[in-house]
Amino acid sequence: MMKQIAIGQAGGPTAVINATLAGFVRALYQDHSLTFIMNGFEGLANKMFRQADAQVIDNVLTHEKIPGAALGAGRYALSEEGIAESVRTLRDFQVDTLVFIGGNGTMEALDKIKDESDRQRYPLQILGLPKTVDNDLGGTDHSPGFGSAARYVAQVTRDMGRDLLTMNNFEQVRIIETMGRNAGWLSAASGLLKEYDHDSPHFIVLPEKSLEPELLMHHIRRAIKDYGVALIVVSEGVCWETGNQVAKDRVNGRSVLGGISKEIEHAVKEKMDVMVRSELLGMNQRSCSVSVSPTDFKEAVQVGQVGACWLINDVSDVMVSLQRSKSSSYGIKFIPVSLKTIVQNGERKLPKAFLDDQEAYHEWLRPLVGYDLASYPPPLQRR
Amino acid sequence: MMKQIAIGQAGGPTAVINATLAGFVRALYQDHSLTFIMNGFEGLANKMFRQADAQVIDNVLTHEKIPGAALGAGRYALSEEGIAESVRTLRDFQVDTLVFIGGNGTMEALDKIKDESDRQRYPLQILGLPKTVDNDLGGTDHSPGFGSAARYVAQVTRDMGRDLLTMNNFEQVRIIETMGRNAGWLSAASGLLKEYDHDSPHFIVLPEKSLEPELLMHHIRRAIKDYGVALIVVSEGVCWETGNQVAKDRVNGRSVLGGISKEIEHAVKEKMDVMVRSELLGMNQRSCSVSVSPTDFKEAVQVGQVGACWLINDVSDVMVSLQRSKSSSYGIKFIPVSLKTIVQNGERKLPKAFLDDQEAYHEWLRPLVGYDLASYPPPLQRR
Repeated sequence: MMKQIAIGQAGGPTAVINATLAGFVRALYQDHSLTFIMNGFEGLANKMFRQADAQVIDNVLTHEKIPGAALGAGRYALSEEGIAESVRTLRDFQVDTLVFIGGNGTMEALDKIKDESDRQRYPLQILGLPKTVDNDLGGTDHSPGFGSAARYVAQVTRDMGRDLLTMNNFEQVRIIETMGRNAGWLSAASGLLKEYDHDSPHFIVLPEKSLEPELLMHHIRRAIKDYGVALIVVSEGVCWETGNQVAKDRVNGRSVLGGISKEIEHAVKEKMDVMVRSELLGMNQRSCSVSVSPTDFKEAVQVGQVGACWLINDVSDVMVSLQRSKSSSYGIKFIPVSLKTIVQNGERKLPKAFLDDQEAYHEWLRPLVGYDLASYPPPLQRR
Repeated sequence: MMKQIAIGQAGGPTAVINATLAGFVRALYQDHSLTFIMNGFEGLANKMFRQADAQVIDNVLTHEKIPGAALGAGRYALSEEGIAESVRTLRDFQVDTLVFIGGNGTMEALDKIKDESDRQRYPLQILGLPKTVDNDLGGTDHSPGFGSAARYVAQVTRDMGRDLLTMNNFEQVRIIETMGRNAGWLSAASGLLKEYDHDSPHFIVLPEKSLEPELLMHHIRRAIKDYGVALIVVSEGVCWETGNQVAKDRVNGRSVLGGISKEIEHAVKEKMDVMVRSELLGMNQRSCSVSVSPTDFKEAVQVGQVGACWLINDVSDVMVSLQRSKSSSYGIKFIPVSLKTIVQNGERKLPKAFLDDQEAYHEWLRPLVGYDLASYPPPLQRR
């Protein structure tokens, strides 16, 4: 039976969110009717719909390997009235199936839309497709987008560390701030390519623990003593032992984290006579086209394909999750997880097993970023 | 005749400075005696020398494709007494030839060392090999390091612009700050991959002109009106119409530029009710291993090889410069330019021909960043 399907992308884009869209569209467009919801939930609330003709389909498929969201995404908080109105809109457009590619906020919104459609007695099939660079979505081993972002963070930390080592008579301390919100997955990835003690990072500060100034200064002093420089990676969500998260702004009810690296810069300058710079890795983490992980790209496409397959089979009210196979070599199975479970799980942080054992985390992470990253020789010994 | 050669790297590293070192070393190590000067001019002043045995040579050659300086580099201002002492040191070590890979400051230091060796009547052969990401070295069409940095800036501006476009309901203005010191070569490269009007950047602010607040606001307002967002690229060396360059710090007598993007962020926030973020592209510009331009890498190696060839032929007191062939297809000849000329030329800015004609600049730039960068389809039209 031909279905009327509406699909959108929401939240911050990733380097592979369009791969999921392309995988989904390619599997369905010949047998079903597709409507694209532009600009995420804002588009749903305001009927920014686009019927998928041949040219539009072609455009979406052309975006498969391109960062950013082909349909537009963004952050938009649906009000209760907005949700009720959205369901009425979907009914007016005779939509059978609503699909969104997104993270925690998206799955929560889909779950509310589900409840509202039940209330309105409108039989709406709902599917969520995961994406997040922060990897804080529960109910899944990991989400598409994270592998590429982690690859970017690991690779630039290594490269910047190499750069800083050669500049030790000019600049001694560099504080690098990563994305990740309240979870340390991305920051912890910064150490993946460290091979020698002098390699960066020399210390990682994760949001799962509060930041003790004395411990931080100890690590910085030790790295300067041993290697001439200290490169510290800090997650945007880190709090000082006494204090709150550092936020730049507040938009659509969501705090825009950022600035803890600058506070650390100032703290170091107060304690030590060294040159210090702080640097946010910024938007590149989720948009860099040359750091896409082959594994991440492949899985992103598969998530779209699997969602299309479940859609045809009338699966509803679930998100496509990735589960690791138990075998020793890396492999993935796709399992439905109910939206309610995702919502109940909330933000997923870095588990204690990985906080306590960095090597265990790296082993878990390695297949996601791709095995093709080159190793680095040590620099010449000074004499 | 076997020569005793001392070589060092100075200034900020680039993604290909080790390619020049490897090209040079590979051409000479079998027939000549090599000494590596560690940590740039600091190492020359403080006798941080390393005799090149087989293992050290192997280590240097292994670094050929790796960012950062294998020998250590850094900024160090040689005093007059330091220069006199350096020449005495070179004489003590019976060095026939001194070679440094560096930028304007390096060529100036080499020129002074030349004059001092004349004064001390010590016959010292001196060669400079160019490198700079800022492309502000005169007497050459361009310098190794710039092509890769320009490629990085062009590619991330495109990627970030794509990301911002999809987030227009959350974030409207992004100010991106590039390196470049007093010259706009790098910032101007940010527009190289722009294909459609909505693509980023929407406006570029170069240090060759002072910044008029009203003109800037006009461009930001127009981009927001037309595309929902505005992405502005600004060079670290830009001054407000009334005011000075924004510096973070001062180290070894050199001002550390940075912060104009943050000032623009505040200025926009004062004038408009929009979400604005500023972002420094940071160290990545000169150290990103995955954005190395194939042309840049090849030319960096050649600069080292050509320097080695001239060294054997007793050429002295010059820098290896790259001159474009007059034919329609891209090609390079290597020409010696005297160190005195380089010093007299001073910092090379973006010429008026390129300031007035962006397309002419892009045509000049395209071969340097590599022809292999993919083009991007336009995003879906909103409706």
